[in-house]
Amino acid sequence: MKYERKISEAVIKRLPRYYRFLEDLMNMGISRVSSKDLSVRTGLNPSQIRQDFYCFGGFGLQGYGYDVESLFNEIKKILGLDTTYNLVIVGAGNLGQALAKHIPQQKKGFKVVGIFDVKSSLLGAKIGDIEIMHIDKLGECIRENNVDIAALTVPGNYAREAAEMVIKQGIKGIWNFAPIELKENPDVVIENIHLIDSLMVLGYKISNK
Amino acid sequence: MKYERKISEAVIKRLPRYYRFLEDLMNMGISRVSSKDLSVRTGLNPSQIRQDFYCFGGFGLQGYGYDVESLFNEIKKILGLDTTYNLVIVGAGNLGQALAKHIPQQKKGFKVVGIFDVKSSLLGAKIGDIEIMHIDKLGECIRENNVDIAALTVPGNYAREAAEMVIKQGIKGIWNFAPIELKENPDVVIENIHLIDSLMVLGYKISNK
Repeated sequence: MKYERKISEAVIKRLPRYYRFLEDLMNMGISRVSSKDLSVRTGLNPSQIRQDFYCFGGFGLQGYGYDVESLFNEIKKILGLDTTYNLVIVGAGNLGQALAKHIPQQKKGFKVVGIFDVKSSLLGAKIGDIEIMHIDKLGECIRENNVDIAALTVPGNYAREAAEMVIKQGIKGIWNFAPIELKENPDVVIENIHLIDSLMVLGYKISNK
Repeated sequence: MKYERKISEAVIKRLPRYYRFLEDLMNMGISRVSSKDLSVRTGLNPSQIRQDFYCFGGFGLQGYGYDVESLFNEIKKILGLDTTYNLVIVGAGNLGQALAKHIPQQKKGFKVVGIFDVKSSLLGAKIGDIEIMHIDKLGECIRENNVDIAALTVPGNYAREAAEMVIKQGIKGIWNFAPIELKENPDVVIENIHLIDSLMVLGYKISNK
């Protein structure tokens, strides 16, 4: 789903956080919330929240606050979570296997349809109900399942090659866990998760408190 | 190690990237590099790189560039990677187990000394050479091993409780994988890895290209 309004990168990055909190509130049976309450829960300031919601047409009412369910549904629609994204995982090592199990548990509109590797010792093993397949079958899997996203959980020295391969097979988004920087281009968007970078930043901050 | 100069948060977040690239260059036997070359590799612009390096006293020479090894060692020192940080993992599910295997493979100065859970079906199982222990033993492990960092890989509904517990046991940094926002305070620094948030942002970007 393409959303009509242009939303800034900074706002987009906060949307999942709102989405999570509104979902929690719904699960607790809470039907309305003030920007102040949301502020306490999300750690963002209330005027920021009001501004963000205003961006995508979520209007609070003075003395009433926001309607949790309609705001939740609006953000869900903006994030495209009213449909399901199919996803493949390239690299069936520790991280790849963990993601294959973790993503379905989150029930957030992402479905893992294949996990791939080249190591013969891994091929054929089952992760949940998905079998680890040889990378040769990747193109077929992407076409048959209309796959948009590839998670890259390969070692750094294979990452560029793997990225080029999935792009060639028509992938539109790469969720990159390899310790390299991939460049966005008009055909492919990139989200990097550099785990060890984040751990290094944490180490730095501890040492320099 | 406490670094004397004050370095901005934005620069700190780029340091691990420089560290990785300089390490790659060293491994390839390359002894000097220009900011332009680094720019191509890191995707950052050359003047940004020069400015960052200037911040921590890395001076390039016109027509020569930067000395790879001394720059690498300087960043290593700033990041505190000339010592080893001990780390515990709280939550021995898929992610916790994957991190326990992944971190030692990266050889970046972080050592996993314990992994904890409450589920009796997990206790006693070995992840590499570390046994999954009951959370009751956490405090003892933290004190005995001088542990600074706790990775939280527990479900969202246990995360606050787990965070309070590790803070009480003297942890200085939390590497948080749970889908909640933890507040920094003068005693504890937080680095959040919100995996599914990042996947949602990727989904949004794909749908709105």
